[in-house]
Amino acid sequence: MAGRLLIVHGGGPTAVLNCSLYGAVETALAHRAVDGTWCALGGMGGLLAERFLSMDSVPASERAKLPQTPGSAIGSSRDALGAADYQKIAEALKRHDIRYVLAAGGNGTMDTCGKIYAAAAALGYEISVAGIPKTMDNDLAVTDHAPGFPSAARYMAATVQEICADVRSLPIHVCVVEAMGRNAGWVTAAAALAKLGETGGPDLVYPPETDFDEDDFLGRVEKLFARGRGVVAVVSEGLHGPGGQPLVPPIFQTGRSTYFGDVSAHLAQLVVRKLGLKARGEKPGLAGRCSIALRSEVDVAEARECGAAAARAVIDGETGVMVALRRRPGKKYRAETFLTPIQDVMLTEKTMPPEFLAAPGEGPTPAYLAYLAPLLGGPLPGMRLFTR
Amino acid sequence: MAGRLLIVHGGGPTAVLNCSLYGAVETALAHRAVDGTWCALGGMGGLLAERFLSMDSVPASERAKLPQTPGSAIGSSRDALGAADYQKIAEALKRHDIRYVLAAGGNGTMDTCGKIYAAAAALGYEISVAGIPKTMDNDLAVTDHAPGFPSAARYMAATVQEICADVRSLPIHVCVVEAMGRNAGWVTAAAALAKLGETGGPDLVYPPETDFDEDDFLGRVEKLFARGRGVVAVVSEGLHGPGGQPLVPPIFQTGRSTYFGDVSAHLAQLVVRKLGLKARGEKPGLAGRCSIALRSEVDVAEARECGAAAARAVIDGETGVMVALRRRPGKKYRAETFLTPIQDVMLTEKTMPPEFLAAPGEGPTPAYLAYLAPLLGGPLPGMRLFTR
Repeated sequence: MAGRLLIVHGGGPTAVLNCSLYGAVETALAHRAVDGTWCALGGMGGLLAERFLSMDSVPASERAKLPQTPGSAIGSSRDALGAADYQKIAEALKRHDIRYVLAAGGNGTMDTCGKIYAAAAALGYEISVAGIPKTMDNDLAVTDHAPGFPSAARYMAATVQEICADVRSLPIHVCVVEAMGRNAGWVTAAAALAKLGETGGPDLVYPPETDFDEDDFLGRVEKLFARGRGVVAVVSEGLHGPGGQPLVPPIFQTGRSTYFGDVSAHLAQLVVRKLGLKARGEKPGLAGRCSIALRSEVDVAEARECGAAAARAVIDGETGVMVALRRRPGKKYRAETFLTPIQDVMLTEKTMPPEFLAAPGEGPTPAYLAYLAPLLGGPLPGMRLFTR
Repeated sequence: MAGRLLIVHGGGPTAVLNCSLYGAVETALAHRAVDGTWCALGGMGGLLAERFLSMDSVPASERAKLPQTPGSAIGSSRDALGAADYQKIAEALKRHDIRYVLAAGGNGTMDTCGKIYAAAAALGYEISVAGIPKTMDNDLAVTDHAPGFPSAARYMAATVQEICADVRSLPIHVCVVEAMGRNAGWVTAAAALAKLGETGGPDLVYPPETDFDEDDFLGRVEKLFARGRGVVAVVSEGLHGPGGQPLVPPIFQTGRSTYFGDVSAHLAQLVVRKLGLKARGEKPGLAGRCSIALRSEVDVAEARECGAAAARAVIDGETGVMVALRRRPGKKYRAETFLTPIQDVMLTEKTMPPEFLAAPGEGPTPAYLAYLAPLLGGPLPGMRLFTR
């Protein structure tokens, strides 16, 4: 089956999304069965509007910059598509002789993949569709981890380690650092890796899987403060009380978007007001998913390989699958890709399992750190402090 | 004059403060006139309490980790000292045979240096005192720039460039990034360097030297939004209206500390509420002054040299001086150290001069970028985006 291959991005970017793009593009360009390697500019919305870019005419020297580019080099979207949209997309694919479709994204994008395939089948137009896993939140089912997550985890662990060095350099105070991941605590919990290093790491780590209790938090901060050493807490942006009540109520709702206040600022203010202690909040936010300098080299390599594996899969006639990662047996970490049916992945949100979660405030278990450590592509930088 | 040499840290750390420490320690250890290289643990408060660490017994392999360590490896403080404290410090110096005192810090620390010298002189105890410049804010007078600033500037420029790539990958929205520097806009304005790169950089840059007008800001955001491309604004944490009224009123006051709300969150909420546009705020905060991965190699080398030059100066009998940096003539950037009287530096806050400031929202002038660029130790990483 000869035809064009199309790559589409869905959802928020990661630090290695363009590594997957590069892996897919280079594989497709090298393959005879592929008669044109295209990208949709601006995600599913771009595909719907038929905004395409041909990679065939982009010089290799320009393509080589992709792995060093954060964000999405071809643009992504969060469009909610309806039945009519899928039909329009299927017609566009047919009209442009696109036979291979690769979509990089998370749960929502995998769902979209399945619907595009069904819409094309309904037209009697045969296509091969594969998903490239991508989410800094690590909430994708089946795969051991999702490309993008190891880099976000490394960013959080390294940055919190550095913030701990800074905070503990100064007269005692409290610092609350906010981590991305509204429903899944994988990135928040990654900060606990800094506990193994010179700074002692964060004192308190709160993933969103566990209900948050403000009074318990304040009690712990007060006790830690009495110890005489700067207190660092890492909290998920999605913390909520029992019953799912968000810690910081939504400030504004517009269409499908909700604007939440910042949990870090809220908790820092709480410490100042209720305990009378000096406190500040930090929210690296987007910086945590787009830092090239702090990403994981394991992630860079795996993301590229996931893109390449997806391109190989559709060219080989596979369809309705997502590339996933699994660990190979042995002591030394090595991962390999495999294909999994998209329906096993789509619309399932993989939060942290109980065996990875310690008591509230205490972050992850050693089992989680053992799972996480090899993904970071090397230890955190060494330091020497004389004031611990 | 033989005796001990003591190093003290004052104020908030930078990403290269321990590079200066390393430069000073290695120079002192190598010098015969120095009979013991000590550090005060915990800044001026540590000196007052006579908490000392001898570096003579710290193995070279441990000392070699200092340049890679953020924060202050020996601890710093923000203590306000009184006349009795200075006398106590002078007595302690005499009792411990400390003849050479190096203090790394900003304006306040340089003031402290002068007072320690005067207190020792009043005791009839001769000491040599020198300051090592240090402040991420770059608000020190006389010196071309202060060690710590180039790294904070590189962090801000590189991170904002990456955030721009992320924001412009997604359907149009607004992102407000907060920069450190309450009174001086040097770090805020550094974000404008990202304008030269692939992402187009930030659209709006607001240093605190210029009064901030919320309505004008909202009008500009609305106009930029209508252009159809994601809007990125970089704002100083110290923004204020005419008359110095802070944009976000202080939330809590405790002793000498004031807790301000976050300007980034405030402005993002304003955009959401008043314009009905999707917006988010980011506040890397402390991460911007403790990132080892994003610091400037020029800064690393200069900070170390400033520490070494201060040690050489006091050993040579200089006193009441601060090490400063100036540019050497020629097209290629090269800086050299020189000594300046501490009284020319202390308690003066060097904000951005008018020739470096463009119209409100438009950030710095090209003259500022020309001043800044060589300090960053190399261009920002290259990228390739197909969706600009």
